[in-house]
Amino acid sequence: MNTGFFSTDKIPFEGPDSTNPLAFRHYDPDEIVLGKRMEDQLRFAVAYWHSFAWEGLDPFGGPTFDRPWYPQDSVENAKVKADVAFELFSALGAPFYCFHDADMRPDLGNFSANKRAFDEIVEIFAAKQEETGVKLLWGTANLFSHRRFMSGASTNPDPEVFAYSAATIKSCMDATKKLGGQNYVLWGGREGYETLLNTDLGREDQQMGRMLHMVVEYKHAIGFEGQIMIEPKPQEPSKHQYDYDVATVYGFLKRHGLENEVRVNIEQGHSILAGHSWEHEIALAQTLGIFGSIDANRNDYQSGWDTDQFPNNVPEVALAYYHILKHGGFEAGGGTNFDSKLRRQSIDADDLLIGHIGGMDTCARGLKAAAAMIEDGTMSDFVDERYSGWNSDYWQGVLAGGGSLDEIARKVEDEGIEPEPRSGKQEYLENVVNRFV
Amino acid sequence: MNTGFFSTDKIPFEGPDSTNPLAFRHYDPDEIVLGKRMEDQLRFAVAYWHSFAWEGLDPFGGPTFDRPWYPQDSVENAKVKADVAFELFSALGAPFYCFHDADMRPDLGNFSANKRAFDEIVEIFAAKQEETGVKLLWGTANLFSHRRFMSGASTNPDPEVFAYSAATIKSCMDATKKLGGQNYVLWGGREGYETLLNTDLGREDQQMGRMLHMVVEYKHAIGFEGQIMIEPKPQEPSKHQYDYDVATVYGFLKRHGLENEVRVNIEQGHSILAGHSWEHEIALAQTLGIFGSIDANRNDYQSGWDTDQFPNNVPEVALAYYHILKHGGFEAGGGTNFDSKLRRQSIDADDLLIGHIGGMDTCARGLKAAAAMIEDGTMSDFVDERYSGWNSDYWQGVLAGGGSLDEIARKVEDEGIEPEPRSGKQEYLENVVNRFV
Amino acid sequence: MNTGFFSTDKIPFEGPDSTNPLAFRHYDPDEIVLGKRMEDQLRFAVAYWHSFAWEGLDPFGGPTFDRPWYPQDSVENAKVKADVAFELFSALGAPFYCFHDADMRPDLGNFSANKRAFDEIVEIFAAKQEETGVKLLWGTANLFSHRRFMSGASTNPDPEVFAYSAATIKSCMDATKKLGGQNYVLWGGREGYETLLNTDLGREDQQMGRMLHMVVEYKHAIGFEGQIMIEPKPQEPSKHQYDYDVATVYGFLKRHGLENEVRVNIEQGHSILAGHSWEHEIALAQTLGIFGSIDANRNDYQSGWDTDQFPNNVPEVALAYYHILKHGGFEAGGGTNFDSKLRRQSIDADDLLIGHIGGMDTCARGLKAAAAMIEDGTMSDFVDERYSGWNSDYWQGVLAGGGSLDEIARKVEDEGIEPEPRSGKQEYLENVVNRFV
Amino acid sequence: MNTGFFSTDKIPFEGPDSTNPLAFRHYDPDEIVLGKRMEDQLRFAVAYWHSFAWEGLDPFGGPTFDRPWYPQDSVENAKVKADVAFELFSALGAPFYCFHDADMRPDLGNFSANKRAFDEIVEIFAAKQEETGVKLLWGTANLFSHRRFMSGASTNPDPEVFAYSAATIKSCMDATKKLGGQNYVLWGGREGYETLLNTDLGREDQQMGRMLHMVVEYKHAIGFEGQIMIEPKPQEPSKHQYDYDVATVYGFLKRHGLENEVRVNIEQGHSILAGHSWEHEIALAQTLGIFGSIDANRNDYQSGWDTDQFPNNVPEVALAYYHILKHGGFEAGGGTNFDSKLRRQSIDADDLLIGHIGGMDTCARGLKAAAAMIEDGTMSDFVDERYSGWNSDYWQGVLAGGGSLDEIARKVEDEGIEPEPRSGKQEYLENVVNRFV
Repeated sequence: MNTGFFSTDKIPFEGPDSTNPLAFRHYDPDEIVLGKRMEDQLRFAVAYWHSFAWEGLDPFGGPTFDRPWYPQDSVENAKVKADVAFELFSALGAPFYCFHDADMRPDLGNFSANKRAFDEIVEIFAAKQEETGVKLLWGTANLFSHRRFMSGASTNPDPEVFAYSAATIKSCMDATKKLGGQNYVLWGGREGYETLLNTDLGREDQQMGRMLHMVVEYKHAIGFEGQIMIEPKPQEPSKHQYDYDVATVYGFLKRHGLENEVRVNIEQGHSILAGHSWEHEIALAQTLGIFGSIDANRNDYQSGWDTDQFPNNVPEVALAYYHILKHGGFEAGGGTNFDSKLRRQSIDADDLLIGHIGGMDTCARGLKAAAAMIEDGTMSDFVDERYSGWNSDYWQGVLAGGGSLDEIARKVEDEGIEPEPRSGKQEYLENVVNRFV
Repeated sequence: MNTGFFSTDKIPFEGPDSTNPLAFRHYDPDEIVLGKRMEDQLRFAVAYWHSFAWEGLDPFGGPTFDRPWYPQDSVENAKVKADVAFELFSALGAPFYCFHDADMRPDLGNFSANKRAFDEIVEIFAAKQEETGVKLLWGTANLFSHRRFMSGASTNPDPEVFAYSAATIKSCMDATKKLGGQNYVLWGGREGYETLLNTDLGREDQQMGRMLHMVVEYKHAIGFEGQIMIEPKPQEPSKHQYDYDVATVYGFLKRHGLENEVRVNIEQGHSILAGHSWEHEIALAQTLGIFGSIDANRNDYQSGWDTDQFPNNVPEVALAYYHILKHGGFEAGGGTNFDSKLRRQSIDADDLLIGHIGGMDTCARGLKAAAAMIEDGTMSDFVDERYSGWNSDYWQGVLAGGGSLDEIARKVEDEGIEPEPRSGKQEYLENVVNRFV
Repeated sequence: MNTGFFSTDKIPFEGPDSTNPLAFRHYDPDEIVLGKRMEDQLRFAVAYWHSFAWEGLDPFGGPTFDRPWYPQDSVENAKVKADVAFELFSALGAPFYCFHDADMRPDLGNFSANKRAFDEIVEIFAAKQEETGVKLLWGTANLFSHRRFMSGASTNPDPEVFAYSAATIKSCMDATKKLGGQNYVLWGGREGYETLLNTDLGREDQQMGRMLHMVVEYKHAIGFEGQIMIEPKPQEPSKHQYDYDVATVYGFLKRHGLENEVRVNIEQGHSILAGHSWEHEIALAQTLGIFGSIDANRNDYQSGWDTDQFPNNVPEVALAYYHILKHGGFEAGGGTNFDSKLRRQSIDADDLLIGHIGGMDTCARGLKAAAAMIEDGTMSDFVDERYSGWNSDYWQGVLAGGGSLDEIARKVEDEGIEPEPRSGKQEYLENVVNRFV
Repeated sequence: MNTGFFSTDKIPFEGPDSTNPLAFRHYDPDEIVLGKRMEDQLRFAVAYWHSFAWEGLDPFGGPTFDRPWYPQDSVENAKVKADVAFELFSALGAPFYCFHDADMRPDLGNFSANKRAFDEIVEIFAAKQEETGVKLLWGTANLFSHRRFMSGASTNPDPEVFAYSAATIKSCMDATKKLGGQNYVLWGGREGYETLLNTDLGREDQQMGRMLHMVVEYKHAIGFEGQIMIEPKPQEPSKHQYDYDVATVYGFLKRHGLENEVRVNIEQGHSILAGHSWEHEIALAQTLGIFGSIDANRNDYQSGWDTDQFPNNVPEVALAYYHILKHGGFEAGGGTNFDSKLRRQSIDADDLLIGHIGGMDTCARGLKAAAAMIEDGTMSDFVDERYSGWNSDYWQGVLAGGGSLDEIARKVEDEGIEPEPRSGKQEYLENVVNRFV
């Protein structure tokens, strides 16, 4: 059955010269990149929320989209939405999708009714997965939209909200497991504060730590094999969010002894809002051993709020995949999720296809450029050479715990060490990158 | 002996009605605030570098100041500089100052000559401390101005620079100990990168961790009793700095097992550049157990570079001291350093006095307001009450490791928990603050 | 009749020592400031939209407030809303309010029905004004919330939207005149673009210019005596807004020959988002002869979106009123509007009172401080003296069009002019300000 | 004569597959793009200051470069510098360069001595231009580095500084004319303020307006045919700069009746700092009729200070050239200046070549992509179609001054106009752009 919502049910690969807006020009799932099918390297996922549940509101405007599944207040309409969503996944050839509970089911006003509706929809999703071959990259719980969460979920001053959050996470983890989800994500949009004046940081840290422990405990209890991931973001909707960036999440995990259990899902847009490049956050997470997955949506650099746009700048995306590929890709189960939304003026049904096509093509070009950089080796050789002075026995010994300020100071004076700076060659390296993008 | 550089050798306290630009209106060192002399609560320090070594350059302009100790290339002029500096400390009644090696001594071109010059100047400083009663709050090493450090100090790809840095830190720690310094600070202005393209994050993390361990080992070896502190800053001069903010430093310390040995010196300006309020960074450091000391200089919120201005906004400063006082003040040896510089157009000698007077008065008003907030108790009572639901045995048990998602989910369903949100009362609390500032 | 929505119907002035959250501590309407009653200097207005029509949504969350006039889809509920609103105005003793059409009336789905509903509500407002003595500071049209405006109002690529906008503005100007409004404001939240790729700047400039001309023509046609004002904002909701800041609006007005007909309504929050201080925008508008009125709501400096918070920092507000008072206050009919919204967690009815009380007290303190600075004269004397070299006949002649590069170059060489810089005394002046705030 | 400073005296074009760091891969001066040689479309210029006069300082560090023309305090060394500079221009095949007086000559301490040195160096430059065929794109005066300008040049409170500035501009305009310069530029780095507290905006506006009039008068007096241009920048070094952005400069020009005499030189980096995209500033200047020339150096989006980096992102550069080409390119005499500096760690001589090669290749790719977009026509056709509703007689009449709010309101009611929104197709257009970059 086809709802007829989109003007096509299949986006073909037509190659770089195509001018067909409903074709891929770069994303060819079967092309081999660094020894793997492109589809298996990129592992694209569509976000259910932005593409299907968001109605086009912004802080100064109401809904702009006009969809057959509106209003989103009944299980019946939720089924229409699911029909169209799986048509999108299939048309794009996207192997994965991601969800929140609240995207999938209507809000029926209380926990039990919502849970029943959710369970019903999950069954439908399971059937659709079976039918289409589309899989679940990750599930997550929406603990930020309803007013009950306005002052936090696990970090709420009211333990009843903590309880409600725990129960919601449980049902989302159950659904994720049932749907064969490969990961489970936590994004703490309200885990932070609007003003420090009414906030106890110590208590909230303890609450958030305990909740995360319970998530990990439950994962093991039910035998869920996927990665548990936190998605960092510095602010918005909260004035300050605790999962500010990768470094902050790492400190939190270490503090609570969870650094071997929990990883990060890194969004380009959130990286930018935190003052970092995306590749910084990815490379840092890899260094710290907590890299999990990515959200490939960009932020406008000059809009101070979350713009969640489809990626369209190949040079930026290439650097992200460069670091991902250097560390083995998404071996641990991550992928490339588009936590992207259409601009609210893009109200045509096919705009949903077009936005994803552009994002997928951009990522495909970025991936291929990154693979070429790796195969070329110029960049990593340069870096290795730059640090090669550290490879001597003496300096390896120091790094291993040898030496002391005193001993090294004597060495400086005795040997008359006066280091001569060497060029960092940034422009050269930037030009090397431009050979590939 | 008086150099005659300033138009007065003593800034008196004249009370709030004074219009004398060379008098304090709020800073009365002997006034008792929360049971202590104001001087002992605030523990003001003057930064040697900005006030005496910086010549007024900015990225588009050369020196504007015209000082009797220019050019700063001889030990002789360094002595003139020291004479004037201690006149400033004394005139202000500032109990402390802070230094880098490179502020105090000329650059004579190689490590040994610089070390000799430094040792000579340290003797002079020791004598001046003796004579004036002014003390050293903290010392630090300048590992960022000379071109040898352009690609990092401990994180340099060249281990010779690491060695040079270690030797420099050693001499600065020695000088700090000799001068009775109460703390030792590390600010890593070049510990970061200009481009990730030429950078190995893992190696640099390891190098920086080892250096910090050596600092701590040396502290214990020489019996230095003061706090070792890192000063976070997100960027500038580097594109990215590793000690980004308090949370990042905490993660780094945990990673290297140093969280009980090293604390943070928190600057308002750096907090702002990292996207945080100053009080956030202070409260977070206290929560994490790593609060050490403060730099009380603000940043223009709208200038994207480090403006290092004297504090002048009492409401902002009051909230910082509120958190400091709530956690026992500077019990562990910290203080209020002015890492502030005059605007480069403020070229009169007395502008140095006037800038500090304004900063000290602003801090004095902020401190008194903070003390009044604490004595009043409205704010902290509100926060305690807000979280009081967590004080039950059940929820304390959960926080202590009890419960599970499963158990709590059952509780939610069984008890029909549907939490009702309560007002966060932000405007009320802001109005309460305004009763005191 | 009292709806009982608030816990009090009158906020008394109790003086600075009061701890009553429902009393003014600084705003005493009858106190004389620079020769006028404080009420007549400040001319406070409450914004109907944020306080009554906004339901607490943010980009990640739904409504949090729970008001007796929800849902806002009937004329009946609009009347309940009006009842409570005038109770707020009266309780606060706010002499003015401001409105958009869409705040006051429900959306009944088409222009004619909406106009009828609007007319009906306007009658009710007229009666309430009569009854309470509360007046209208300004009216404005909401040309940004409905999806028809998603691509602009007057700048829409579709002339039908231009037409719809013109018709809406006409009805809002009519209502403003009927209600005795003292000004009419245009805020162009969608007059800009989301992407330059689909935008013709020249066409949109022409459209916007023509609309503003028609507004001015209509003002004269109906004999409306108040100021027409544009409210600048740089972005949000649009990626770029044409009325970016005061300087940009001035250029637009000059381009279209409207600089003597149209002025600006300057919001602190929008000033901050545009990279300026509020006092800069005010002083610039005064210099350019287009200062009209203010919106006294601040923005969080570190949140990149519009936070519309009640003002609470007295030093900032004092500098704004300093410039306003120096140029004669709100002589031309402007006032102090609170385009402020409660934080969405502030869900108690009385929070609406408390937010406004804090804002009004902050402005009252700021105004009094500003008046004291003016009476003191130190600051303006300093500025006059600083430029006094320009008062000579020679330099006045140059400014009047005399001299030439050639002549002045000869003068420099002949007279050997080598200017000696003089201190800008910024820290001194900041300390002077702190004597008053 | 060859100084041997660089390792080559000619950068060849080797095509896209070259891996030679000292070759162009995309910039082939003779390739025809939209009917013109690429060299004549791009009109590249090298900035004398950043590449030759800047020593590598930043706010936290001293010089890093080590050049044979240091110290820059003698005419002799200035000649060495000129020798190397023209070798760079020639090696790159850059047709143009740009200068400030202070880059070319040493500072000899007073106006007359500096003028004599400048005149001497100008003769040398004239000879070198003759010899190499390199030409001058534009000259400008450095009115911001010396301490005499610390409080402004034309906007200084001291008219002697205004005089000194006028004399300096005169000598720079004379030199520009003598050297056949095609434009003259004014960048007002100190034309603004550090604090509004000591500033009279009205006086400074009048002073700046008078100076610009004198510049225009002098241009006509000496028969200089080139464009006079202002280069906008929002801030840095000043807290606020008057030439904030294109729109602000336009308003200033209109206010002083100079909009037909003066244009803008638009830098990408400054556009970004002002909150705009580069293409926005270019398209706006074209709309306002004041587009002159460009500085093709980018800013790091996340560093709040001026980073002046060589362009390296082709998609960004392509959009800039798209607007330039659409409006006839640099017909009026502008060009593409690299106001770029090496990173201070890029200390090798050849890094100067490499930086420019990367910038020139990036611009060449961008230009070719832009030309292809124009030849394709999809984008401009889309925009024309989007606004086509305005082409009717009725709406053209309204834009020409017909209609009124009243008339149009009647039309809306009579015709029952209820506009239906149409998709803005942003993602589609972004994908179209990606077909070309």
